[in-house]
Amino acid sequence: MQVSDLVAAARAGDRRATARLITAVENSTADAPDVARLATGGDALIIGVTGSPGVGKSTLVSALITAWRETGLRVGVLAVDPSSPFSGGAILGDRVRMADHALDDGVYIRSVATRGHLGGLAATTGAAVRLLEGVGFDVVIVETVGVGQAEVEIAALADTTLLLLAPGMGDGIQAVKAGVVEIADVYVVNKADRPGADGTVRDLRALMSLVRREPGEWRQPICSTVASEAKGIDDLVAAITKHRDWLAGGDHLADKRRRRAEAEIRARVDAELRRRYTVPEALAEQVANGETDVATAVGRVLGDTA
Amino acid sequence: MQVSDLVAAARAGDRRATARLITAVENSTADAPDVARLATGGDALIIGVTGSPGVGKSTLVSALITAWRETGLRVGVLAVDPSSPFSGGAILGDRVRMADHALDDGVYIRSVATRGHLGGLAATTGAAVRLLEGVGFDVVIVETVGVGQAEVEIAALADTTLLLLAPGMGDGIQAVKAGVVEIADVYVVNKADRPGADGTVRDLRALMSLVRREPGEWRQPICSTVASEAKGIDDLVAAITKHRDWLAGGDHLADKRRRRAEAEIRARVDAELRRRYTVPEALAEQVANGETDVATAVGRVLGDTA
Repeated sequence: MQVSDLVAAARAGDRRATARLITAVENSTADAPDVARLATGGDALIIGVTGSPGVGKSTLVSALITAWRETGLRVGVLAVDPSSPFSGGAILGDRVRMADHALDDGVYIRSVATRGHLGGLAATTGAAVRLLEGVGFDVVIVETVGVGQAEVEIAALADTTLLLLAPGMGDGIQAVKAGVVEIADVYVVNKADRPGADGTVRDLRALMSLVRREPGEWRQPICSTVASEAKGIDDLVAAITKHRDWLAGGDHLADKRRRRAEAEIRARVDAELRRRYTVPEALAEQVANGETDVATAVGRVLGDTA
Repeated sequence: MQVSDLVAAARAGDRRATARLITAVENSTADAPDVARLATGGDALIIGVTGSPGVGKSTLVSALITAWRETGLRVGVLAVDPSSPFSGGAILGDRVRMADHALDDGVYIRSVATRGHLGGLAATTGAAVRLLEGVGFDVVIVETVGVGQAEVEIAALADTTLLLLAPGMGDGIQAVKAGVVEIADVYVVNKADRPGADGTVRDLRALMSLVRREPGEWRQPICSTVASEAKGIDDLVAAITKHRDWLAGGDHLADKRRRRAEAEIRARVDAELRRRYTVPEALAEQVANGETDVATAVGRVLGDTA
């Protein structure tokens, strides 16, 4: 099948065609330039969903899919699993929870393994995000577990980043530790029917009152949801839409798209550069026992590759 | 003060001297080679402590410090905060919890900010770990929040990695998601007095029964603790000692040390390589709107820097 036929099929809702196109751009096959050229345009809402294990990300994503499907939007999901450098596989749990949407041609779900260090989230998902947008998905959700690095990367990738918290996962100081205050666009306190939910919302609000904002800057809303019962999802969708409108109001959206492409290029360049040098075992040994200091060792490795 | 005097002072328990030496090796000052040469030797137990926010890492570390201090061991702690690329600062909570040890010269606690992408955990803490060992600390604890990337990095750095879980943070499938089964050396179910603790232990045990091990391979124990009441700490210390003995039995320990040095060198080389190129804004824009595919853009950037 020609690339142009595959793109047309993917636009018409053929999930196998979509899968083949993503594989092509991920692996930079010979067809990749054609795919990039043909599967372009589109104006998807790119949503990042992050949070610690157990806060209910997959359930929330499933509820969001349902909500957007009801208004006729096509939804693509990339479930990133950054934590499995060894097993590298897809996670059964997510698949099970999202099985509600298995027969819906308007939904495409793909698990992505970042496989440890080699470029991370941006290298593996940037192209897939752009492709889903290019074949006409109206919403692309990138879901990943994690605090720290993964969260920073997802914020660079998404237009709107949701950070999920759940009651009993720790108080305000834990939110600070997770570095969440500065990165997310919308906070979601999921499992809001559990004891302690009010406290979590209160802590978060108190924390955010400490952040100074300029006029016109985005103020992160705090949404309460019970994703398993689809409670609070409408408010969350409204908050996401509001953020999108805010983004569209300035140059934010074009900036975001350019920065996303830049992050992807950088991630791939970094991975390639890393492949091009080795650290001799003897040199590592010298550093380990104090014969050579690290800076000298680094200089020697860089000298070897220059 | 001469480097040799500083090293002698640090060995004698002078924390300001220790702090100055760490700063020198972290920043690769002109003194760094001398420091690396003089502050060497030692045979510390390097412990990594990781887990999601809210599981009680700092409280557990504090309890472990107390236990080791009772047997006269000197304990250094590097509290890594990988999640604050923007604020980059130390976290109040940890400091508060570890204040018990503030007046004890046998304890040195330092917060380390990894500041986002530039080299991560290995680049910022490898040298500090080696220094603390070199000035006579018997135990060096590296504590970090996080699942995924941070956990992989801490496992590369430490001799013995503890993974903390707490009841109610999710069931077995969550542990799989966190990718924990393959990385940790000792599992700790903290807050073991809370409802659901038995279930967490049971899930973990069931998961681990699925992992095939060769004879002589390490089998991760599962320890239950209530760190806030110092319950279960003795058993945990015994498990750590047992793992250390297992490591010492083969070539594992020398291997670990070499690999730690290698990880540190690589992290710094990577950071340096990243500094040496830029992605032109126009090129990122072309990728964002489909005029250029990513692989071509990557090739162009690499061509520019070759």
